Amino acid sequence: MKEIPSTKSSEIPQFRHSAISPFPSRYDQKLEFILRAAARIFANKSYHSTSMRDISRATNVSLAGLYHYCSSKEELLFLIQDNCFGRVLERLEERLSDVADPVDRLRIFIENHLSFFAANMAEMKVLSHEADSLQGDLYTHVSNRKDKYTTLARGILRAVQDQQEIESIDLTIATYALFGMMNWIYNWYDPNGSLTVNQLAQNVTRLFLGGFMGGSASLETHLKDSSRQAENLSVWRGPDR
Amino acid sequence: MKEIPSTKSSEIPQFRHSAISPFPSRYDQKLEFILRAAARIFANKSYHSTSMRDISRATNVSLAGLYHYCSSKEELLFLIQDNCFGRVLERLEERLSDVADPVDRLRIFIENHLSFFAANMAEMKVLSHEADSLQGDLYTHVSNRKDKYTTLARGILRAVQDQQEIESIDLTIATYALFGMMNWIYNWYDPNGSLTVNQLAQNVTRLFLGGFMGGSASLETHLKDSSRQAENLSVWRGPDR
Repeated sequence: MKEIPSTKSSEIPQFRHSAISPFPSRYDQKLEFILRAAARIFANKSYHSTSMRDISRATNVSLAGLYHYCSSKEELLFLIQDNCFGRVLERLEERLSDVADPVDRLRIFIENHLSFFAANMAEMKVLSHEADSLQGDLYTHVSNRKDKYTTLARGILRAVQDQQEIESIDLTIATYALFGMMNWIYNWYDPNGSLTVNQLAQNVTRLFLGGFMGGSASLETHLKDSSRQAENLSVWRGPDR
Repeated sequence: MKEIPSTKSSEIPQFRHSAISPFPSRYDQKLEFILRAAARIFANKSYHSTSMRDISRATNVSLAGLYHYCSSKEELLFLIQDNCFGRVLERLEERLSDVADPVDRLRIFIENHLSFFAANMAEMKVLSHEADSLQGDLYTHVSNRKDKYTTLARGILRAVQDQQEIESIDLTIATYALFGMMNWIYNWYDPNGSLTVNQLAQNVTRLFLGGFMGGSASLETHLKDSSRQAENLSVWRGPDR
């Protein structure tokens, strides 16, 4: 996790070490293990219905042990949400850094979002259902990250409209329609089923770009098969339980 | 509400009288008032965090009074979900009954879904977030209605593909992408804001149809301005609180 640029950073919980370090500490590994389990339980039975005792049972970490890694259930929810937005944004900015063409940037945005969240479906459901469960500074911090991500998406869509000289679709509707198409996958998509993430991303890209660009002639040149190597995109490291 | 065609109908709670009667009984009016309030509270603080006491406070109906209208909090959740799917399906089937052209049927499906749920945003959030909160027969009953609705949507999309001789988009992805675009509105759309439901429906229709039909020549003829008269589409009757 990148250092958090906040004047109140001392109040905002964070991993002790950088989450992107290839050599995570034992502490970070254990915290990630706890966060991953917490995300699954929050996704299954909701944040409010989950107790720290449930998380203790699921992880085989004693209650006292859990409080060594976080001060509260709310801090677990914050770390899950903050880590997800942090990682998906970081990965996107890296992939966009040397791409100038607006349609290519949009294609990368869609592929990045879908492949990341297909690998983190429980976390995606928690981001969606528990967006309002945080309070105060923790809520504001995650909310700012989400706004940054949404603004980035909207900017990419505006650049496509400017380049293609199309304006038929309202930009706000287009932005949230795109997020809706992508985020809804936690309700139906099975990452272990017959439909690969590549197929999912290619179909969603074709569906959205086709409608957004209104059959623009340059569309087909952007829809070439862009299959990517499989990567480990889980927001957490370490072995799954 | 239509009579429920279930072999176990005696176990499934329902309104005593038809919900589509223009002359609802006082009992039905009061039950609808309670259900509408319950939907708002479930949407705001989640089903699991809501107590019957919360609903009693919000409605000024005593706890004993509430139990005159429903046997449990779960029954309230069931009636909200069942009534929503029942009403949106009923309205859709009525509007589709004399329309044969697949693209027109798809346009009507989108308009019907968006206008209905824009008028019932709290209920939409409850349908989305509390889909798994019902148990046993109540869960199965709502789940069957939802499957019927999804199958109808998928059938309309398949008919469009057959008519237009297009097959570039996977039908499962297209169906859920469409539901995602539409259902996500509870996260961002303000029915009282500057963007009208008509504008929302027209933009979503253009976005989805454009991508799904891949710039088919016949698309534009279907995208004529189809502004509809404003209707009262709240799933509940009677005065708002």
